[in-house]
Formats: sequence, C-alpha cells, structure tokens
Amino acid sequence: MKKIEPRTLSGFMELLPDEQILFNQMKETIENTYKKYGFLPLDTPVVELSEILLAKAGGETEKQIYRFSKGDNDLSLRFDLTVPLSKYVAKNYGNLSFPFRRYQIGKVYRGERTQKGRFREFYQCDIDIIGDGELDIINDAELPSVIYEIFTSLGFKDFTICINNRKILNGLFESIEQKEKSTEILRIIDKIEKIGKEAVEKELEKLEISKESIEKIISFIEIDGTTNEKLEKLTKMDIKNETFSQGLEELKKVVKYIKTFGIPSSNFKVDLTIARGLDYYTGTVYETFLDDYRELGSVCSGGRYENLAEYYIDKKLPGVGISIGLTRLFYKLNELNLIKAEKKSISDVLIIPIIEDLEVPILVATKLRKLGINTEIYLNDKKLKTKFKYADKLKIPYVIIIGEDEVNSKMITLKNMESGNERKIDIKKLDELKL
Amino acid sequence: MKKIEPRTLSGFMELLPDEQILFNQMKETIENTYKKYGFLPLDTPVVELSEILLAKAGGETEKQIYRFSKGDNDLSLRFDLTVPLSKYVAKNYGNLSFPFRRYQIGKVYRGERTQKGRFREFYQCDIDIIGDGELDIINDAELPSVIYEIFTSLGFKDFTICINNRKILNGLFESIEQKEKSTEILRIIDKIEKIGKEAVEKELEKLEISKESIEKIISFIEIDGTTNEKLEKLTKMDIKNETFSQGLEELKKVVKYIKTFGIPSSNFKVDLTIARGLDYYTGTVYETFLDDYRELGSVCSGGRYENLAEYYIDKKLPGVGISIGLTRLFYKLNELNLIKAEKKSISDVLIIPIIEDLEVPILVATKLRKLGINTEIYLNDKKLKTKFKYADKLKIPYVIIIGEDEVNSKMITLKNMESGNERKIDIKKLDELKL
Repeated sequence: MKKIEPRTLSGFMELLPDEQILFNQMKETIENTYKKYGFLPLDTPVVELSEILLAKAGGETEKQIYRFSKGDNDLSLRFDLTVPLSKYVAKNYGNLSFPFRRYQIGKVYRGERTQKGRFREFYQCDIDIIGDGELDIINDAELPSVIYEIFTSLGFKDFTICINNRKILNGLFESIEQKEKSTEILRIIDKIEKIGKEAVEKELEKLEISKESIEKIISFIEIDGTTNEKLEKLTKMDIKNETFSQGLEELKKVVKYIKTFGIPSSNFKVDLTIARGLDYYTGTVYETFLDDYRELGSVCSGGRYENLAEYYIDKKLPGVGISIGLTRLFYKLNELNLIKAEKKSISDVLIIPIIEDLEVPILVATKLRKLGINTEIYLNDKKLKTKFKYADKLKIPYVIIIGEDEVNSKMITLKNMESGNERKIDIKKLDELKL
Repeated sequence: MKKIEPRTLSGFMELLPDEQILFNQMKETIENTYKKYGFLPLDTPVVELSEILLAKAGGETEKQIYRFSKGDNDLSLRFDLTVPLSKYVAKNYGNLSFPFRRYQIGKVYRGERTQKGRFREFYQCDIDIIGDGELDIINDAELPSVIYEIFTSLGFKDFTICINNRKILNGLFESIEQKEKSTEILRIIDKIEKIGKEAVEKELEKLEISKESIEKIISFIEIDGTTNEKLEKLTKMDIKNETFSQGLEELKKVVKYIKTFGIPSSNFKVDLTIARGLDYYTGTVYETFLDDYRELGSVCSGGRYENLAEYYIDKKLPGVGISIGLTRLFYKLNELNLIKAEKKSISDVLIIPIIEDLEVPILVATKLRKLGINTEIYLNDKKLKTKFKYADKLKIPYVIIIGEDEVNSKMITLKNMESGNERKIDIKKLDELKL
C-alpha cells in the first residue's frame, strides 16, 4: 500500500508524552488556581457563526481567521475566548448570577504567518469578572493576586506584575488637548524602551504636538521611584482633568488592595507606559514579566473594560480579566528549561511480571490503584531488560518485579528506580503502603 | 447600536455554569481513572490536513466532515481521535515506548443532521494500547476493568460490559462458506433484538443462504446461559475452523483475566451478537450498557484492531482501545437526572463583607485559599440579601459574614448554608480550619 506521509500542520503544537505531561501540569496549576478563587468553568464551542465572532473584529484579526461554509452556515473558528464570553453572557444574561466570575481554558485559532514560537492553534487560559451595570474597582486588585499565585505555583520568584490605568493616560492627553491623537501617541510611547527618549520626542514632533506638551508627556512617562513615590509624583503633577483624577484614584485603590492581597512589593509595580491594546481597555491594565526573561514579552496580561457585550445586548456589563497564552509560554519555558515538574511520569509504579500466570501481578496492581497509586502492569512477553528499559524511558519512579519467588513467599520488592533502593513488602500488608 | 442576536450553533453543546460543573466532574473522573491505569496524555490538533484525516475514511464520514481551505492547505476538523492517533504513532514511531498506552480527551466534529441528543461537536474520551508488532491478549482483559472503574466511580452499579470476539463470528461464517456475505449477515443479526428471530431468518434467506447455514447462525446467536455455559456451548459446537478456534481461545483468556481484574460477574457478560463496526475491529469487541437504560445504547465501546497506522507507516501496530462519547452521555444522564456530583459549586466558601475596609475579609480569604479551600469574596457593594441570594444561586456551601463586630472581636462565623448551622472561629486559629 502506498503510504501517506504522517505530518502535523506547521504552527500546531503536538508534543511527545513526556512534554505533554509537563504541559498538562502547567495547565492544571492554572486551572486549580482559578478554581481556588471561585471562578466558574465555561466551555464554549470552537466553531461559531462568523456573524457572531466577527461582530467587532476587523483588520488583522479578520484576515487571520479560519472561516468556511458548511451547509448554509458561514462559520469561523474562535480566535479568542473573549468574544465567545460576550456572546455567552448576552445569551444567558437572565440565567447568570452577577458578578459573573468565569474561567475558560481552551484552544483558539489564528492563521498567522508561522515562525518559530508562534502558533496558529494555541491555548488561552482566561478569567473574567463581569458586573451587571457596575463592578467595584477592588476586583481589579484581586486579579493580580491570581497572577501572583499562578507564577509562584509554577516555581517562579522573580516576576513583576506591571499595573497602569488607561484613564491616567487618556486624562493626560485630554489635558494637553491631544485626545484625538492618543492612539498614535500611545504607539510611540510604547517604543521608548526600544528606540530611546530622543527618538520618541522626534516622532511626537511629527504629530505636530507642541514642545510644551511633548515635555509633559515625556516627564510623565519618566516618572520613576517606588510605587508610592510614583503615585505621589502623579498627584503632584496637578493635572486638572476629571478622567486623570479618576484614573489616579482607581490606581491608588488598586495598589492599596494589591498589598492587602499579600503580593510582595518586589512582585508588582506601577508602570505608566503600559497601555495594552488601544481600544479595548478603559481602566486598569496589567502585564506580567519574568524579570530574567523580559524578551519573552508579557506572560499574563489583561485589564478592565467598560462594556463586554454591547454588540449583542443592551445592558451595560463592565468587566475585568486576564489571559495567559499557555502554548507559547510553555514552548518558551521548555526551550529555556524553566519548567518545574512535580511528576515526570503518569504511572507511579510499573509492575513487571516474570511469571506466566498473571493473577498475583494483577491483584497487586488492583490494590495499588485502590490506594490512589497510578499503576501499570507490563503485559507483553518481553525480556526483563526490555521491561526495565520501558520503565526507564517513561521515567516511572518505582518498579515491582513479580515472579515465582514473590508469589510463593507473598513478599514483593519495591524498587526505587532513581536511588536503586529496594523495600520488601508483605502482599497482605499492601493496604498500608505509602510510596 | 443595532444588536446581533447572541446564539450558538445547533448541535453544539454550551452549558450553564451549574451543568458545566457536573460535566467537568464526569470528565475528571474519566481522566483520573485513565491515569490510574498509567495511560499517557496526548493532545493533537483539532485541525489536520484532509489528506491525513481522510486516508481511510469514505462514505458517511466523508460527507459529515468539516472541510475547508486556508491558503494552499486543504484542511479538516478531526472526526474522531483514532485517526489522529494513527498519524501520531506513525510520525513519532521512533520516539515512543511500546506498548504505547495513551489517553486523549478532546472535541471531535461531525456535521450530522441535528436532532435532540445528537451533537456536531462532542467530546470523545479514548484510551488505546498499541503494540509494536504484537500485543498480548491480556491487554484486552485490562480495558474492561477501566470501564468498570469509571462507571462505578460515576455512581453506577447496574451496568453490563458485553464482550465478544470478531474471530468467532468470522470463523463461523467461514465454516459455512459465507465469508463474503459476513458484512450483510452481521447487519441483519444486529437487528435481532429489534425485529425478532423470524424476521432475521427471512432476511437471511434473501441472501441466498442455505437453510442449514441459517439454522447454524441462529443457533449460534441464541447460545445463552452464564458466561461459562456460553463458552462451553461454543466449544461443543465443534466448528472446524482455525479463526473460530483462535477467537474462542482468546475470548476464554479474556474472560479468565477479567475475573482476576476483579470485575463482578454481574457487571460483564459474553454477548455473541456484538460486532461493533464492520471493518475496523478484528478480535475482542466491547459494548457497555446501563441495565435500566438500555435505550441509551452503548455508553462505552471499543475493541481490538490488527493494524493501527497502515496508511502512514510500514509497521505492524496492533492495538486495543475503548471510547466514551462524553457529550451525548452527559446530555442523556442529565436529562434522566442520573448524574451524581461530589460538589455542586466551585467555591467552598463565600466571604460576605459588610464593612468598608476590606482588609480583614481579604486576609481571611487568603488564609482559606492557602488551606486549599476554594474561596470567593463578594466584592460588590450590594444589599446583604442580594449577597446571600448569590451564595444560594451558586450553591456555595459555606458563608462567612465579616463586619465591624467580627473585625473588632477577631471572631468570625462560618454558616453552613444547607443546615443553617453556625460555627464561631477565631481568626488567629484559622490555619486549623477544616470544613
């Protein structure tokens, strides 16, 4: 028979089992943390009507989308988890309890140009808190504590959650009467780390902004010091603008409660240059960086938005959320060898029978499984060496060999594959076994 | 703004949070059982090249597939998890350890005509054991013990795992020289429960099968009694056919070890009428029925196949596997109110602050979360009644109210929402709390 070459599409991650085990542990850590904060699970379809998914989209997003027809339907694969959430909340508005706290971990699709470390199918891990009409600003302080717990649980110490408030930026631009240019200004400011202060000034000049206003912008983004010092300097700028004042008040409250939530001051800071997407967010914004690997970009981002579902429903639904792009994060961390795994195998024990009648090996396996110990029996007739090699390759930490001697004496030997240590165990006392 | 009606495609399940919690618990039970038996996780793309997915498919499957172009690629959404497994094993043959035991739980897509209880996007929960060249028959006895553990863990007692071996059927047809009609004969036999013995006889006559052979077929499928009696009657049929004998030997061995694996005789039986798909399976086949709800059809099926990946690789890779169609199973069980949930909410505790400064409520929440207790703080400024209603609707089992009194006395009250019982707890001793 002519064979078809077995291959996977580029930009679609497919892992070998040992990497998949690591990936799943990261995913579980994130999911368990979301649950610990009481977020409800959600699972929406991967396929939706294009009319629904593209209600808002445009430009780049629309070009990247996987869109096709089936029967009379114009369908698309979801490109994020936010639009499906908007639809879901609008559709089920009457059946949900607000504030509606939901998590969703699922695959999304973007037909980007493939390059190393970029994926067309990737997991997003999102949480959002949606209010009905209003949503207290303290919610904005809780999300950083979720970020803190996740990255701590993943074994990181040196990471920084950067916080800003879009109203401060918007208010500043209003105060210098440059509101209509805010998108362009933000885009330029965003480059300051890359291109430096002078280049930023020059680009701002091209926008025909007065020298005085440019100075104000630059002195604003150069505000430095501790979080408290920054907040003080912002206050002292004495900008007479309602939006600015509101943003500053919100930021102060968020910072106050972030401390109450127990985040060490070394793990968060106010960063006035962060804007996060130009249209979507309206208040608090977050980005998270691994201090020693800033080149990875933000590993967890999000913010506050004014109205979740305006395309579908005539209700004001403000929300705040964060998202982790798990596939890319895993890829990068794995490349850097930064993933700390609790367990490197699924099985805790491999039972190797060297006897024809498998009754005792099976009974032992059944007992271990009842104790919650993941147990596998090597059921194929191979040489002992092959069986041990299997345990080795799968990194299974314990092996039990069962042959005639073990069956007759009712004593088995538990071998620790790493240390080589062996423990004799009475089969009758197996119920008391602890690994 | 003109609104777009928020809606979800028909045939695509989208649950409210309380149902999603139940669904996820079922999914976790299945996944944890798969892990307990040492199956490795796998996660393949939802989208693959059509050439890969359709290597074997044809007829009905091909018509149902979601197929589309993106750039130069002819793509399809996967319609099962077996074809992706075949590709994966062929592609990674040199990097896998055999027997390769993998589980995969993921969504698959079939554009069937929608009707109640039928889904176009649905979860399959699969395990397979793949051998390199050969795979011992005892593996076929282990899978029923996985099925047994899953349905027991899901709270069912009265279910039956039905087992057969395709070689017995094939050998029988060979012995009466009707091998080339076996597909049609199987299709007719399959209907015996529905249409009765006489109708089956008539349909077989239409195939121009001799009276004598029809009698043999009927007496075969009418073999009854206990599992042991059936095996004995099969032996006594004295059919001189190599395939038949082999199948009978295999079935005997599987039955012997199923007992060793601890499955009570009330939960499995030999059912000689089960054939399961006409081309794919070549040996052992399984179906599982809930005794009181046979109308649901088989809730977990599978079997042995000779060669997993012949379309992609020139290696003999025999395997045995089972699959649970979780979406449909959940839908039906939920309709019948048969789902037993451990927990009906994600949060264990809701903290209700009735005080402006949220420091103490947040500190209490942080402590509880550290104890592994899923905890939510009601962070919006609403009436107490509204806050309690929220706990009620979300079925959160415990509530802690924190106001001025609690802050001053450092004593809080844990209220059990179901019983109404209250427990006073010293905030300083919160570390010792057990719910």
